[in-house]
Parts: sequence; structure tokens; C-alpha cells
Amino acid sequence: MKRKIHIFDTTLRDGEQVPGAKLNKRQKIEIAQQLAKLGVDVIEAGFPCSSPEDLKAVQAISEQIKGPVIAGLARAVKEDIDIAWEAVKGAERRRIHVFLGSSDIHLQKKLRRDRESALELAANAVRHAKKYCEDVEYSAEDALRTDFEYLCRVIEAAVKAGATVINVPDTVGYAIPEEFGERIRKLRERVPVLDGVILSVHCHNDLGLAVANSLAAIRNGANQVECTINGVGERAGNASLEEIVMALKTRSAIFQAHTDIRTEDIYRTSRMVSRLMNIPVQPNKAVVGSNAFAHSSGIHQDGILKDRSTYEIMKPEDVGIRQHKIVLTARSGRAALKHRLSEMGFTINPEQFERIYKRFLNVADRKKEISGQDLHSIVEIEMTKVPETFTFHSLQIMSGSTMVPLASVTLIREGIQCTDAATGNGPVDAVFNGIERIVGQQGKLRDYDLKAVTMGKDALGEAMVRVEIEGAVYSGIGTSPDVIEASARAYLNAFNRFFANSH
Amino acid sequence: MKRKIHIFDTTLRDGEQVPGAKLNKRQKIEIAQQLAKLGVDVIEAGFPCSSPEDLKAVQAISEQIKGPVIAGLARAVKEDIDIAWEAVKGAERRRIHVFLGSSDIHLQKKLRRDRESALELAANAVRHAKKYCEDVEYSAEDALRTDFEYLCRVIEAAVKAGATVINVPDTVGYAIPEEFGERIRKLRERVPVLDGVILSVHCHNDLGLAVANSLAAIRNGANQVECTINGVGERAGNASLEEIVMALKTRSAIFQAHTDIRTEDIYRTSRMVSRLMNIPVQPNKAVVGSNAFAHSSGIHQDGILKDRSTYEIMKPEDVGIRQHKIVLTARSGRAALKHRLSEMGFTINPEQFERIYKRFLNVADRKKEISGQDLHSIVEIEMTKVPETFTFHSLQIMSGSTMVPLASVTLIREGIQCTDAATGNGPVDAVFNGIERIVGQQGKLRDYDLKAVTMGKDALGEAMVRVEIEGAVYSGIGTSPDVIEASARAYLNAFNRFFANSH
Repeated sequence: MKRKIHIFDTTLRDGEQVPGAKLNKRQKIEIAQQLAKLGVDVIEAGFPCSSPEDLKAVQAISEQIKGPVIAGLARAVKEDIDIAWEAVKGAERRRIHVFLGSSDIHLQKKLRRDRESALELAANAVRHAKKYCEDVEYSAEDALRTDFEYLCRVIEAAVKAGATVINVPDTVGYAIPEEFGERIRKLRERVPVLDGVILSVHCHNDLGLAVANSLAAIRNGANQVECTINGVGERAGNASLEEIVMALKTRSAIFQAHTDIRTEDIYRTSRMVSRLMNIPVQPNKAVVGSNAFAHSSGIHQDGILKDRSTYEIMKPEDVGIRQHKIVLTARSGRAALKHRLSEMGFTINPEQFERIYKRFLNVADRKKEISGQDLHSIVEIEMTKVPETFTFHSLQIMSGSTMVPLASVTLIREGIQCTDAATGNGPVDAVFNGIERIVGQQGKLRDYDLKAVTMGKDALGEAMVRVEIEGAVYSGIGTSPDVIEASARAYLNAFNRFFANSH
Repeated sequence: MKRKIHIFDTTLRDGEQVPGAKLNKRQKIEIAQQLAKLGVDVIEAGFPCSSPEDLKAVQAISEQIKGPVIAGLARAVKEDIDIAWEAVKGAERRRIHVFLGSSDIHLQKKLRRDRESALELAANAVRHAKKYCEDVEYSAEDALRTDFEYLCRVIEAAVKAGATVINVPDTVGYAIPEEFGERIRKLRERVPVLDGVILSVHCHNDLGLAVANSLAAIRNGANQVECTINGVGERAGNASLEEIVMALKTRSAIFQAHTDIRTEDIYRTSRMVSRLMNIPVQPNKAVVGSNAFAHSSGIHQDGILKDRSTYEIMKPEDVGIRQHKIVLTARSGRAALKHRLSEMGFTINPEQFERIYKRFLNVADRKKEISGQDLHSIVEIEMTKVPETFTFHSLQIMSGSTMVPLASVTLIREGIQCTDAATGNGPVDAVFNGIERIVGQQGKLRDYDLKAVTMGKDALGEAMVRVEIEGAVYSGIGTSPDVIEASARAYLNAFNRFFANSH
């Protein structure tokens, strides 16, 4: 009988703190839906007191997402806890997650409190949360650098005050696995009340050890891990959900533990988070990187052909990476496209399908073959669509090394074509300036990335931008075989997100 | 007295096997120079029998790089070993690295040999290498899945045959830290002859545990780790040099071990490898990712302002990431630029400086301010220059949603301007077609990536391409505030590499 390990996903909280990764409500709901499909036990949906938008997003997730526990984060402060309760109270299953620094360095330098008053503050905060909510998690921030005796006392006090989950975070990513495992083992020994609650860990990756530390904790008695998709999060990020889950699965004989994650949904979730947060995944990222299953040296390929197990410990299909043989073209038609999409695991309503088909034809007209990756990109863009205040119609550019680049842009607003022209220091800049003139808003480009989603000169280019508009940052994506058009669509997409948010 | 851990860098061998990351001789030498500067103990420069080009590259590194041991890889086959010796014999310090599968699965499925004959083969191979070279490393491939008693016998036989280094690889990235550490500890106990040689490990990252496994091995008696810059390598890659080194340094009290790595050179080496291999580093990569030292949440920023140690265990300066306050513009002049470059740690000869200054002015004319990252990118491009068979002169494009994109391109060959025009399915495609017409060679675009190196709409765009030309893949990079020009420069750069290689 294998132990169950609870997967607490904090992509929408710790992950979303990353510079430029800010999501709007609609995007957060989309990711939460996918996390529920993936089978996570807990979704930490946000830090509701941090902004009114985040409060609204957590409320919306609480109302719409069934299955996982929805958690809201709060400092050990009455007002934070009140707001966290407002955020999660509509959920089918809900949790308030209270945290307070416990290391001397945090107490002295940040909180300016002594140990005793911090301990009392922690217990009071848990009691306050408990008035609202049966399920209360308490995190002893910077637990690894906390005096062990004091940590035991804090945890005991939190459990006695009603905490149902105790979390031991390595906030600064300082631990090494043996040390972290030992701390968990000793806590289990020294704090017997822990047997009645869930013992959780939360590891950061500053030394590249977040996953190893989480696994060491699991072997030593932790039964919840806090993690994120693709390992996104503050600084070098959090422990990677997909790496922990696949390590537990691949080495189940050693861990004697299981999760309820549907691993076939891992790759799709990874792609969605990367795209919506605009945080690329490096090719050599474990489990979900584009090379993770690519065997390149002659010797490895030879071994793989003779027997896959010579060099392969996981199958790409286990995490939802599938190879397709049938090639789609502009003449493939609706039925073939529908079939492929359902094979790829997408659930698409008829209205979405029509949008996807239209975009598919548009791309297929310019490309000879549509690959699985092209299709993934088309579907994700159409399904994560924001309401379009302005719709892209067309553009023209003239540019060159010795001339002033200029562009004309045509957008459609409520059925009416609006055209304007602008110059810039390059054709993309000129197009962006033209868009700004039409929409009547200035944007500040914070990030820009364009990549070929597929191979060949007629590859589908995918542009990702982050644009600061009126103090907030909006992501935009756009695809086209023409990089200028892809850039224009991405830039406009960011403005449409701004308009959708502000209306 | 802390133990010395030998750093064996295999970026140029295991790292270079990655799809599309192939380097030419000049690029390999450049990286080897930087690795020597970084202070690695061993550079595995290639797998000389894999191709005549690789043999030449390893020979060139052997002749030019002083300081580190230069190693060449060989299967346990006489011809491989002969060629490896040809490759490294010119080095000041040299090593032949012989490997052979040792797990039953490798013996049965790949090598089709029984254990006894494989053991004899291993010992014979080491003896053959030893005839040439005092320093011989023996790797028992797939050691982790090898029967322990047999592994002990193989290792003993290799040491008795003359091996000076024994390497225990987790070839498929299957190990977890406790298990791997225990295997190393038991090997030390059971094979006393190991005390007279260096005990090495080589970990792959399929489950995200390569660094943790390497560190566990160090704690249990390994004194060499094989690793790569940025963790590049087969599939999910190898253990990351920078993560291992910084973990040993940050937690030196626990490890009681040190390396000779000059950590201030880590960031520069990471950037160089990423650029030349065209493998991006994700923002949340530990130690060298762009967010690794970015504190974003309000609570963390507040803590950091009160005391850095609340949330920071390493300083960015420790790995060579510096913040600069003085802003460079087109009017900054040569002296200011020179000063900044030397501050950034670049050693630049006068001829290189002139090229850099010219490019700096070109960029500064179009951008208001030149950031540290702009400068990094300019310097790296100018210093890693290939001889230019064709030099970029200018281009013009006309393109739009409802017209056939067209481009004219002007290149210079031996002082003569060559202009041609072409159409394409987008302006970049049109420009690429124009370049192909002038250079008289077809290329197949294998990968294309364009990113803003800095913020703002006038950011410096950096295009990276991989182009297949006559069966081999060449990388190209180009920068310009105009994305079309950056793309054109990158595409031409790849062709110039092809011409430089084939002449």
C-alpha cells in the first residue's frame, strides 16, 4: 500500500510573482482548469490581499473550479486572513494558508519581533483563520534557517491552534537533500502532534536542489509538496511539479509513494503555463524540455534502436508527448482536423472549432504542411483568446538599411476599418507605433521574443510580448509565417488584454 | 583542510552532442579558452573518432589550451583509442577516456557480450590506452543499473590495468541522491584500490536530480564530477557545473570541499556557451537564469531592503553578474567604452576594439542608451566572429498582409557589391532567399529565435538561427534594432561559418 503524496500547486501564487509573468483573471482560471484536469490536490490560487485584481481572480477560481482544494495565502495578520477568506469562501473545498517568518534573521531584520511574540502571533493567526475555515495551513517561513527547538515549538503551537497542514519551507533555497530530509525526520520525531496533520514542504531552487530536497522530505515523512509547473517561481523558481511526479513514478519501488497526477496531461500543462506566463522552458529542462526525450549521439541512437530501455527510463507518451504520422495540409478538411484535435486531447466547442479551422486554413495556405506543434500553437492561441476590442486586419511595411522604416496598419473596431501609418527605428517598431496611434494608448515594450515553432523557412513564427500599459504589464502572443505580422498580432493582443481588463 | 573536487567539464563532448548545438573548430577553441579561464581541471574536448572534424578540433585545443588536462573520449576499441591519442598527444597535460557498458541491459542488448568477455575487453582497452598515455580514465557506462559485484570487479580490473581515474556514470539519469551516494560509499569500501585513483561521477538530469546526485557522491567519497555549463547535454542534460560549484561554495561547512573554479567567470561562460551552442537558458535556471537574483514579491523586496541575507544566499557578483550605473550613449566615446569593457572583464585587442566600437556606434545611433546586456551582446558577437566571405551591406523590404513580400539584399564580396532581389512568404523569408541567391548556396532553416536583449521598443534584437547547409548545421547570430536586419545578419553569419569551414 503506497503512501499518497498531496500535490499542492503554487504556479498561480509563487509562480505568478515572477517579473512579467502576471496573469489576468481569465488566464488564471484557464490554468486552474488545467491544473484540476491534471489532478493536483491543492491549487494555491493567489495572495488575495496583494491586490483587488488578485482577490477577484481567486474568488472566480473558487467559484468555478471543482475538485482540488483552493487555497489563498495570507500573512499572519487579521486583515490578510479576512481577505483570504473572502477570496476562497465560495470554493467547494477551501483552505486559508497563513505564513510567518520563523528564523532569527527574519524575526530580527524583517519583522522586528522576538521569538515569543512571534509564536503568539502565529497561534493567534491560525485561531483567527480557523474561525472561518476548517482547513488551515501554517507555514514557518525560512524554516531551514530556524533554530530547531524554536521551530518545534512554533509548529506545536500552530497545530494546537487548529492548523491542519504544517508547511516547512526552504524559502531561500539553501538546503541540501540530506540535511532537509533529516530536519523533516527529526520534526516528525520531536513533534508528535504532526501525526494528526499533513506535513508539507516548499523548496526553492537557488542551488538547483529544489526537487531533490522535496524528494528527500517525502522519504522522511512529508506527505505534501508545494511545487509549480515548469519550476517557475521567485528567483530560480520552485520545485518542478513534473520532475517530482515523474521521479516518484519512475522510482516508485524506492519511494513507496504515489500521487494522483494524470501524467499524460503534464506536457500540455507545461506548454500552457509557458505560453500564458511567457516564460520559456529550456530545451534541456527535465521531463518537459524539447530535448528531454531526444537521443542524439550515434551510440545512444544505436542503443535505443536495439532496445529502448538501454537509454530511456520514461516514455514520452507518459507525459503526453505524442508523435503523429499523418500530415495535415490546407486540403485536409474539417473532419481530419477534428480527428487530430481530439487525438491530441483537446475538448473544443463548435464555436472554438470554427475559429481554429479558420486560423488553420490561413496558416496552411502559407505553409505546405501543418505539424503537431503548429496545431498546438494555433489551438492554444484561439482557445486562450481575449475579447477583441480591436481586430487585426492587415499591414504594409517598407523598410531598409538606409531608409526610414514605415508601416501602415489596418485594424477593425466594431466593424469599422481604422488605418494609420507611422515610422519607427525598424519595421516592427513602425508597426507598433501605428497600432498605438489607432488604439489611442501608449505601451512600453518590456519583453519581446519571436521563435519559429517549426522548422523550415516557412515555419510558423510565434511572437510573445510583454507590454506595460498604464502601469500594468500585459502579455500578448501572435503567430504568422510573417514575423512582422506575428509581432503585430502579439502587440495588439496585449492591448486587447488591457481593454478586456479595464472594461 | 578542505578536500579538492576536480571539475571535469564535458560541455564540448556530452554538451555538443545536443541536436543543433554542433560547434566548429574555432568555436570549440573559444569555449575551451573560456573554460581554462574559469579554472576547470579537465576539459573533455570531444569524441575524436566520431568525425575527422572533431579529431581536428580536439587536436587544436590540445595544442592551444594550457592549464587544464585535455581529455579525448574513446570506446573500448583499439582504433578509437588510437585516434583519441592522436587527438590529445599534443596537449601539455592529456588524458584518454575509455568507456564500456557494464549493466546487463547494455551488455545484452547493445554490446551482445557476456560479463567476462566485457571485463576482459575493458582491461585490454585500458592497457592499450596506457601504452600511450599515463593518465587514463575508465567509465563503466550505466554503472547505476549494473550488478554491484560485477561493477566492483570491472573497476578493480580497470585500476589494475592502469586506470588513474574511475568514472561511475548514471547514464540514463535514473538515480536518486541517497542511492547514488550509497553506491559510491560502498564502492570505496569494497574496492580498496580506488584509494590510489580519482573517483569520478557523471550524472544525467532526466529526473531533475543530476546536481543532487553529484553532490551526494561528493559527500560519499567522489573527488571528480563531470558536468557541463548550463547543464547542456544529451536529453535533459548533464549536471550543471555552476550549480555544483555554487552549492559547494555556499554550503562549504557541510561539504568540506572546494573547487578551483573562479566563480566570477561563471556568468560570462554561461552566456558564451548559450550563444555559441544556440541553447537558451530559462529565466528560472538556478545561478545563471535571468531571474536567479530577481526578487519580485513585495514581501521579498521589503526583506531584501532591510537585510539582503533575509532572502539571498549568494551575491550576483559572486558569479560575475554586475550592475552598472553609468549609461553609455553614442557620445560616450572610446575611453568610456574601453573602461566599461575592462570593468566587465573583457580582454580585447586593439583590432577587436575597433570592430566593437564601430558596432557600438551603429547600435547607439539607433538606441538612446546602451545597457550592459547590449554591450555583452555586441562584444560577444564581434569577438566570436568568423572570417566574412560575404559582408552584410544593406537591405530593403516591402511587405504586407495582401501583397507578395519582396526584398533586395546587398552583400559585399572582396570589395564588390552584389545585389539581388527575391520574394518569400514573409519579409524574412524574402531576405533569406535573396541572400541564398547571392551566395549561391541553399540553406534549410532548422531553428530561428529572435529576442529583445533589452527592454523598450528600440531594444537590440538578437536573432539566432541554425541553418542546414550541405548536410551540416551551422549556427548564426545577428543583432540590430531592426528585426529583419538582425535576421539577415544571423542567416548570413551561418553561411559565412559554412564557407569558413569548407575552405
